[in-house]
Amino acid sequence: MGDKLHIGKMMYQWAVDLFPVCRSITGEGVRQTLNYLQGIVPSIQIKEVKSGEQAFDWIVPDEWTIRKAYIADENGNRIIDFKNNNLHLVSYSTPIDKWFKKEDLEQYLHSLPDQPDAIPYVTSYYSKNWGFCLSHKQKESLSPGNYHVVVDSDLKPGVLNYGELVLPGSTDKEILISTYICHPSMANNELSGPVVVTAIAKWLLSLENRYYTYRIIYVPETIGSIVYLSKNAEHLKENVIAGFNVTCVGDDRTFSFLPSRKGNTLADRVTEHVLKHSVNKYDKYSFLDRGSDERQYCSPGIDLPVCSVMRSKYGTYPEYHTSLDDLDLISPQGLDGAYQILIKIMETIECNKKYTTVFPCEPQLGKRGLYPNLGAKKHSKEIADMMNVLAYSDGSLDLIELAEIVGKDALYVHTILIKLQQSGLVEIVKS
Amino acid sequence: MGDKLHIGKMMYQWAVDLFPVCRSITGEGVRQTLNYLQGIVPSIQIKEVKSGEQAFDWIVPDEWTIRKAYIADENGNRIIDFKNNNLHLVSYSTPIDKWFKKEDLEQYLHSLPDQPDAIPYVTSYYSKNWGFCLSHKQKESLSPGNYHVVVDSDLKPGVLNYGELVLPGSTDKEILISTYICHPSMANNELSGPVVVTAIAKWLLSLENRYYTYRIIYVPETIGSIVYLSKNAEHLKENVIAGFNVTCVGDDRTFSFLPSRKGNTLADRVTEHVLKHSVNKYDKYSFLDRGSDERQYCSPGIDLPVCSVMRSKYGTYPEYHTSLDDLDLISPQGLDGAYQILIKIMETIECNKKYTTVFPCEPQLGKRGLYPNLGAKKHSKEIADMMNVLAYSDGSLDLIELAEIVGKDALYVHTILIKLQQSGLVEIVKS
Amino acid sequence: MGDKLHIGKMMYQWAVDLFPVCRSITGEGVRQTLNYLQGIVPSIQIKEVKSGEQAFDWIVPDEWTIRKAYIADENGNRIIDFKNNNLHLVSYSTPIDKWFKKEDLEQYLHSLPDQPDAIPYVTSYYSKNWGFCLSHKQKESLSPGNYHVVVDSDLKPGVLNYGELVLPGSTDKEILISTYICHPSMANNELSGPVVVTAIAKWLLSLENRYYTYRIIYVPETIGSIVYLSKNAEHLKENVIAGFNVTCVGDDRTFSFLPSRKGNTLADRVTEHVLKHSVNKYDKYSFLDRGSDERQYCSPGIDLPVCSVMRSKYGTYPEYHTSLDDLDLISPQGLDGAYQILIKIMETIECNKKYTTVFPCEPQLGKRGLYPNLGAKKHSKEIADMMNVLAYSDGSLDLIELAEIVGKDALYVHTILIKLQQSGLVEIVKS
Repeated sequence: MGDKLHIGKMMYQWAVDLFPVCRSITGEGVRQTLNYLQGIVPSIQIKEVKSGEQAFDWIVPDEWTIRKAYIADENGNRIIDFKNNNLHLVSYSTPIDKWFKKEDLEQYLHSLPDQPDAIPYVTSYYSKNWGFCLSHKQKESLSPGNYHVVVDSDLKPGVLNYGELVLPGSTDKEILISTYICHPSMANNELSGPVVVTAIAKWLLSLENRYYTYRIIYVPETIGSIVYLSKNAEHLKENVIAGFNVTCVGDDRTFSFLPSRKGNTLADRVTEHVLKHSVNKYDKYSFLDRGSDERQYCSPGIDLPVCSVMRSKYGTYPEYHTSLDDLDLISPQGLDGAYQILIKIMETIECNKKYTTVFPCEPQLGKRGLYPNLGAKKHSKEIADMMNVLAYSDGSLDLIELAEIVGKDALYVHTILIKLQQSGLVEIVKS
Repeated sequence: MGDKLHIGKMMYQWAVDLFPVCRSITGEGVRQTLNYLQGIVPSIQIKEVKSGEQAFDWIVPDEWTIRKAYIADENGNRIIDFKNNNLHLVSYSTPIDKWFKKEDLEQYLHSLPDQPDAIPYVTSYYSKNWGFCLSHKQKESLSPGNYHVVVDSDLKPGVLNYGELVLPGSTDKEILISTYICHPSMANNELSGPVVVTAIAKWLLSLENRYYTYRIIYVPETIGSIVYLSKNAEHLKENVIAGFNVTCVGDDRTFSFLPSRKGNTLADRVTEHVLKHSVNKYDKYSFLDRGSDERQYCSPGIDLPVCSVMRSKYGTYPEYHTSLDDLDLISPQGLDGAYQILIKIMETIECNKKYTTVFPCEPQLGKRGLYPNLGAKKHSKEIADMMNVLAYSDGSLDLIELAEIVGKDALYVHTILIKLQQSGLVEIVKS
Repeated sequence: MGDKLHIGKMMYQWAVDLFPVCRSITGEGVRQTLNYLQGIVPSIQIKEVKSGEQAFDWIVPDEWTIRKAYIADENGNRIIDFKNNNLHLVSYSTPIDKWFKKEDLEQYLHSLPDQPDAIPYVTSYYSKNWGFCLSHKQKESLSPGNYHVVVDSDLKPGVLNYGELVLPGSTDKEILISTYICHPSMANNELSGPVVVTAIAKWLLSLENRYYTYRIIYVPETIGSIVYLSKNAEHLKENVIAGFNVTCVGDDRTFSFLPSRKGNTLADRVTEHVLKHSVNKYDKYSFLDRGSDERQYCSPGIDLPVCSVMRSKYGTYPEYHTSLDDLDLISPQGLDGAYQILIKIMETIECNKKYTTVFPCEPQLGKRGLYPNLGAKKHSKEIADMMNVLAYSDGSLDLIELAEIVGKDALYVHTILIKLQQSGLVEIVKS
């Protein structure tokens, strides 16, 4: 516990354990992943929705089962084998067992000429298809001849799974945390999200008091959040005061913030405040740069106050959606950096009340030991901060707005407010 | 018709035909000009208002008739003759037939020392006076001696004329287009306005459907717009949603925009949007730089949403209000550039509706052929634009606001919206 | 009177007279100062509030009387003597008569190592204590040995005094001017405030008409404004439309502006407008940099529209709160600069009405002699200003807003409006 990276290492180990699992938007890999996380936080509930069920404009797809998949040469050598790397197979590939001439096979092979060592990540969820992914180097080296293609998979009615954890607080008002569990063997995008969120769940469970109710969901991206919203949108619209889409939180190259569509919700304000006061620099994106489940949470007709907190954002780093996004890309430090920021965001929301002074004019701080006895040329910075906090505690500003005005970290401002509250000089505005 | 400059050349020819006419705020030159334009667009109505009629703080002035005007030397040589260039005579000059010594004549002679080759344009509408304008070079060369000054003019009760063309649309809501027909032989300021506006009138007449009603007026500057407003202000205030003062639209040096007094009307928004997405650069002026009929349209108590769309703005180019503002200054290209921008402005207003998505969350584009079947590293720009348009079609933004947010040309955004509308994914908000 | 610095010199002489008086937050020095100012403006009323009276969170302190104070060496030489400079004694020092060894005395001696020639200004109003201030040079030169410390003072129930001057106008709405009279022998901070404010009082008394009622108060800083507010807050909140804390207005190094807490009150708008149009540059501070009685006037629950107008702001210049802030630091020029700005602020507020045009469209200026008879290439700047003023006199903007839009000094805009009003073209909006 004396180890500052204790939690970062724990999260990293979870990622190591989960890395080999072949996740997709449905199927056994999703369940294995949720079961593993439930092992850590037993109160996570694993839900299921049947294939064919309608969710707004979408239909829950058939469940995909993959047993094996490979391409063998004429000698029976498996030159590409799903069991070596689950990125080798296009996700949701339909079954096949057939010989192809090299030239006929090529249309089914996906590679990245610009990244000749990387296996790309390709999916075909809503169009029946199959395909293999491989490094461009390997693709270039294929000899002419015949190849035996085997995909032993099923695509048939089953269920779509997701995880849900609701931690009640003193109020029904909720903080939503969403992450996704549909990506196969990749690390920043996306095992980092589930492991960081699970560590946050453990932290929330460890709190003696929670003012807000916390709702944490682990969904397959896009279809999962749409299904979840189709069942819960009214409840969420009524109760969620801030939400966070947690994705790409494992590397340690930068921090990133992608605002909600409205751009000025509590989620946006708290996130940008915490980043500004906690890290040297961060990348601020536009909602036009979005690409994860905030697309659904912020869509017209849903309009939840959800922003995204990330380290290197999806789509912006070279390893993105390839086999290079592996366990070397993420680190205990990287995971821990995101965890600390998210914890600080939650802590800040928990104490984001409005404060008002008790007396008109400045109170007499000296008689309460809050002010030096001798008046001279300069005040200390602490006194100046306290005076500024008092000057703006007019009952109209919440803690974050107050902290922005006085130019200090909200949690530090909160310590001042607690001291002033204990001295009877400020009080919380009843909302 | 294969000629891209077909319309530009047509407009230029109209300018050539109208250039020699001696226009002023009243009189035969105005009627000749309006008759010529009526020859092109027969539905233009030529109206008249009697001298002496009150228009707010103004009185319609007497009508000016000019037959001849010259200054001759002692030998009878006409050294300055109105028939050579109608700028030679101060507009609204009163009659005179008298000999002057050179030194007594000089106070009646106007020239520009800084532009020694240019004849200036001078008027004296509201103070009885006469005078001649000439190049400074010529003025400097006048020999001592006596000069015979002849102005054969009348200034007596008559009428003030203006042209009006109302093209009904599906709604009574109107787009106002105003230009002026009081300037004598000058080209950018101002034959360009009437000829471009007349070409727009032809284009509007060629449309199968017009959503808006279009009101086009050809007035003498200042007194004409004041007279027009004194008769129509209530109707205009109720119906005009956007208006454009079209002036100085003939050269090809730049584009210019001068906002309305409020600065954020539909006219301002559409004009700046179209300019931003259509030309490399344009000059944006302040309403403090105004100088044409937007002075009346935007005045307190009138407050119409009228801005000015120009090429080189009056007062900013060296040839302004001199004989150098001639047919060489304008060109088919210059006129066509302004014409195209104004057409695009009208087209953009015509489709400036509010759109809303039909489904909560993103719709499933793939099953409608609007999305690629294989998910991989990057979307095409077209897909990204469509997703962005969907994300902001929340029913609160009009097309121009939506286009501004997604950072694309409104007419391009409109093609996306049409496609989405045909796929049942967005619909127009009933207003 | 032909002397442009007549008033500046008069103010400077008052400062010279008042400089030696030992002011504090209570006591004889305050009364001497107020009596002197009453000698200049007899209608200043001197009020008193009893020690022990409650004022919000504060209690009016005991009155301090100081008769003599010195430190003598073993030979009876008074090496530090209050009668040489009243900064030598910590303000509100309690009585003592005792011998100290040098090493025991040192904790009671205050000096500034960074400013070895300056005697610092130190106070201990609310904690019973005593101490001496001296230059660091002198402190360093003290020989070992015994010292005789004598403070012959009283601290016992008495009164707190302040001055008040109310000059009625045509309306009950008030302009508040506040300055403070608690600082001993220092010049910029703070004899400049009382002398400049007293000159303004004389000027206000000399006016034939005052639209607004003016309330001028001379209070001890902090406790004085709190006491005053505890008695008058409701009246002030109802009536004060703008207020000015006048402090540090004696040097000639810069001008400074510190906005009210809200930052956009009439006081802020007028002050910044006047500074912008009257001085080459000024320093604009944030309310976070505050440090004088605007702390009380702008506190939550009081919220008066009060800003501070200064030359070199307290805390920003090296001589601040030391014996170097003496009569050499201020000058007739410095005092006069602040006086002129404040006068201009009052003049601007006095004519800060809303104006509206009488006619729709532009009026015909020519027939009223307000426009040149000949129309040619350019208008004069004066005509352009008049046209701009007319264009924005829509009844919604007050004089200052109008002046900001047309980019000219409000008092100059006012001369245009008067001319237009006399011509029947604009009128004041009845409020």
